[in-house]
Amino acid sequence: MESREKEFKVDKFKNFSEWYLKVLEKAEIIDDRYDIKGFYVHMPWAMFVLDKLYSIWEKGLEKKNHQKISLPILIPEDLFKKEKEHVKGFNPEIFWVTEAGDNKLERRLGLRPTSETAFHKMYSLWIRSYKDLPMRCYQSCSVFRYETKMTKPLIRLREFMWIEAHTAHPSKESALNQIKEDTEITKKVYEYLGIPFMFFKRPEWDKFSGADFSVAADSILPDGKRFQLPSTHYLSQEFAKAFDVTFEDENEEKKHVYLTSYGPPISRTFAAMISIFGDNKGLRLPFNLAPIQVVIVPIPKEGEKENILKYCNKIKEKLSNYRVKIDESEVTPGEKFNLWELKGVPIRIEVGSREMNNNELTVARRDKSDRTKLKLEEIEKIKEMGEELSENLKKEAKEWFAEKIDYAENLDELKKKIKNGFVKIPFCSRDKEGESCAERIKEIGEIAGTLYPEEEKPKGKRCPLCGKEAKVYVYACRSY
Amino acid sequence: MESREKEFKVDKFKNFSEWYLKVLEKAEIIDDRYDIKGFYVHMPWAMFVLDKLYSIWEKGLEKKNHQKISLPILIPEDLFKKEKEHVKGFNPEIFWVTEAGDNKLERRLGLRPTSETAFHKMYSLWIRSYKDLPMRCYQSCSVFRYETKMTKPLIRLREFMWIEAHTAHPSKESALNQIKEDTEITKKVYEYLGIPFMFFKRPEWDKFSGADFSVAADSILPDGKRFQLPSTHYLSQEFAKAFDVTFEDENEEKKHVYLTSYGPPISRTFAAMISIFGDNKGLRLPFNLAPIQVVIVPIPKEGEKENILKYCNKIKEKLSNYRVKIDESEVTPGEKFNLWELKGVPIRIEVGSREMNNNELTVARRDKSDRTKLKLEEIEKIKEMGEELSENLKKEAKEWFAEKIDYAENLDELKKKIKNGFVKIPFCSRDKEGESCAERIKEIGEIAGTLYPEEEKPKGKRCPLCGKEAKVYVYACRSY
Repeated sequence: MESREKEFKVDKFKNFSEWYLKVLEKAEIIDDRYDIKGFYVHMPWAMFVLDKLYSIWEKGLEKKNHQKISLPILIPEDLFKKEKEHVKGFNPEIFWVTEAGDNKLERRLGLRPTSETAFHKMYSLWIRSYKDLPMRCYQSCSVFRYETKMTKPLIRLREFMWIEAHTAHPSKESALNQIKEDTEITKKVYEYLGIPFMFFKRPEWDKFSGADFSVAADSILPDGKRFQLPSTHYLSQEFAKAFDVTFEDENEEKKHVYLTSYGPPISRTFAAMISIFGDNKGLRLPFNLAPIQVVIVPIPKEGEKENILKYCNKIKEKLSNYRVKIDESEVTPGEKFNLWELKGVPIRIEVGSREMNNNELTVARRDKSDRTKLKLEEIEKIKEMGEELSENLKKEAKEWFAEKIDYAENLDELKKKIKNGFVKIPFCSRDKEGESCAERIKEIGEIAGTLYPEEEKPKGKRCPLCGKEAKVYVYACRSY
Repeated sequence: MESREKEFKVDKFKNFSEWYLKVLEKAEIIDDRYDIKGFYVHMPWAMFVLDKLYSIWEKGLEKKNHQKISLPILIPEDLFKKEKEHVKGFNPEIFWVTEAGDNKLERRLGLRPTSETAFHKMYSLWIRSYKDLPMRCYQSCSVFRYETKMTKPLIRLREFMWIEAHTAHPSKESALNQIKEDTEITKKVYEYLGIPFMFFKRPEWDKFSGADFSVAADSILPDGKRFQLPSTHYLSQEFAKAFDVTFEDENEEKKHVYLTSYGPPISRTFAAMISIFGDNKGLRLPFNLAPIQVVIVPIPKEGEKENILKYCNKIKEKLSNYRVKIDESEVTPGEKFNLWELKGVPIRIEVGSREMNNNELTVARRDKSDRTKLKLEEIEKIKEMGEELSENLKKEAKEWFAEKIDYAENLDELKKKIKNGFVKIPFCSRDKEGESCAERIKEIGEIAGTLYPEEEKPKGKRCPLCGKEAKVYVYACRSY
């Protein structure tokens, strides 16, 4: 798999789209040459990070009492169509299985685009009493959506990895509390990863199909476009009625449960890491998530090879708690530097005769251009250096993100500033009556929503589109 | 999810099928009430063990230089049909996606029944030189087969979890060596888990569709029927020719690679654990694989509850390296014992006032009927007890399996003995010419194959079916 050429020269900020695809190819993350639009091959370098992301998120969910289950990939059409708003939204996106072997099936079976309908069918069997509530189950799986727009690996694709967590509650209050808990999980995970984002309550016209309201964490990619990360939806009782999910309360009264769903996106989280942390040399991975944390590059002079390798192995042994590779391949040290920089390895150790003879290491951090010398006995400093790199990636991302948020009060300003990122504007309404104003700026961008949980209320401002009094501040943006 | 009743009374050996389904239901492993035949819901108790099994196997593969990737779930019909023997075998089993949204697709897309065709397409792009070989990639995924026979959770189902490892080699020798390495991985994993099995080289008429030959690890379920576990296939160069997977050798000569595939079954491995280790009280899980390793049951007298719970928590803290649950639910201790026995928790600690006052624990091992007293300061013995339980499950399984292998030289004996398990018989041939003899015993059973790697050669024996000289000993059995 290491047979494709490694050179890499595109500017991330000038041409993000080309940069992104190049990184995916050259750093061997995704192979996009599979035979179906929007379906990609994930390479070992990607799988390591994706598995880590799954595990980080699963731990976050399990700490909050979510239980892992696994539901069938296929959802029968009749089950899928039980909740009307949901069907309307997802019907255009579903892949249908209609034949098996030589048989035509009696009913169509959809590849899950999301699994509310499957979960709620089971919840109607599992939930009997208030004692069973809240019920919180999740699954880690791929879902499938028939995207007709341009597809892009890990960003907009037809088969993507995510987690879906579905919860059932005895009261509206308990369900709303779950939404908060979900946003706390999102916050913790993204703070750990260092991905900057903001929470928005989506406008009425952009909520999840079948939801009462949706809250989403949005980040921004280097081209200034909004990138939706996890979203969490308050489903109220509509699905519960459609699927007959009921419980007996303390007074033996039968009631419908209140439902929520939450979708941590694994593919998209990785896409955000690649895009936001990367630079013009390629990927930059946080220390804890890198498949290889430390690469050791031997630089032997004539006749020294064996001794230098011995010394490299000695170093590797001392780093046995980390994921370390000695690059013994038959290319020049410069080519090795390029490759591992491209792949985002956090720490590089260079070992030549000087290092060997002085019991030293020369260490380079992926996010800095200078090198450090360490004594062999100081080798535990590698950990510190790795962690400093992670902190630095976070800090850079945070600072960059802060500059992506601007403010406008009229259309001209908005038009100019929206190319950069989010633009806060006074707006007539987040409810249905605001939709026509949102429609009017469709050519420039869309409305991400109002800040969540604290809405910002303008005073004496007017909506720059209809001129009516502005009830809310919303954030406009271009979008993926 | 704990709302279904817990009683459990079926004899595993007298009525295995009923016992098995009851265990799956009562121990909350599988819910079989989803709406499509052969598609099941995996409950949290199952997911924990299945994830563990994936991780054990992935580690085994990675130690042997396999790299994890992930390929699309859909295989286009034209890609799938490139290798003729393969198509013939799998065509009747494929679910086809033919529509998406409101569109009819231009070509049918199959849900992967196995991914040779997808891997080999990518291998044709990735492999250029002998330096790229051997190439070893695997994916951990679900696969889909349109079973028309009776389905059974984890055993014969339409969506099941497995790993598929595909390798490419520069020579036949290197590929055959891979087959050996695969069987060594199988051996290590099953020795660790304690699942007894035998390796068979399948007869010509029962090999994988498209393979030169297949080797499979077969175990036996309590009803005496053979149960196929991982199999590994030498695919020779047929697929390489169909998919144009070539490399340049040291002399710059272009050659087709030699391919193998290997399929560790995750669902089936769990089914084997449940079936072979279980007893008439329910599941029995090895210490390292149990979702809960130790359950603490407080047995307070009137007014003691709070103090007993404190003491339970003290015990739990001392066991912080293990997965421990204090069962505080509002049912009788006897009901708690039953539930956790049913779910196969290896160690139960009972805590009443006597234990609390003497700083003691009363400990019961799931595989034994007596109880042991431990002093609180001896609590690390719990680990030993857990490991002894795992060893004991292995030992019992091994002894039981040894009795499942018998010998016969004539049809009457075979008929009698085959109900018990494997019956070794002299047989005319494992090659094509033996198929008619295999056909003749179809009503009683089938031929698992010859022992692998060492074949047993009979001397002066005759095939009990055709009367010709027996070239091999084969093992006959009834089968899942």
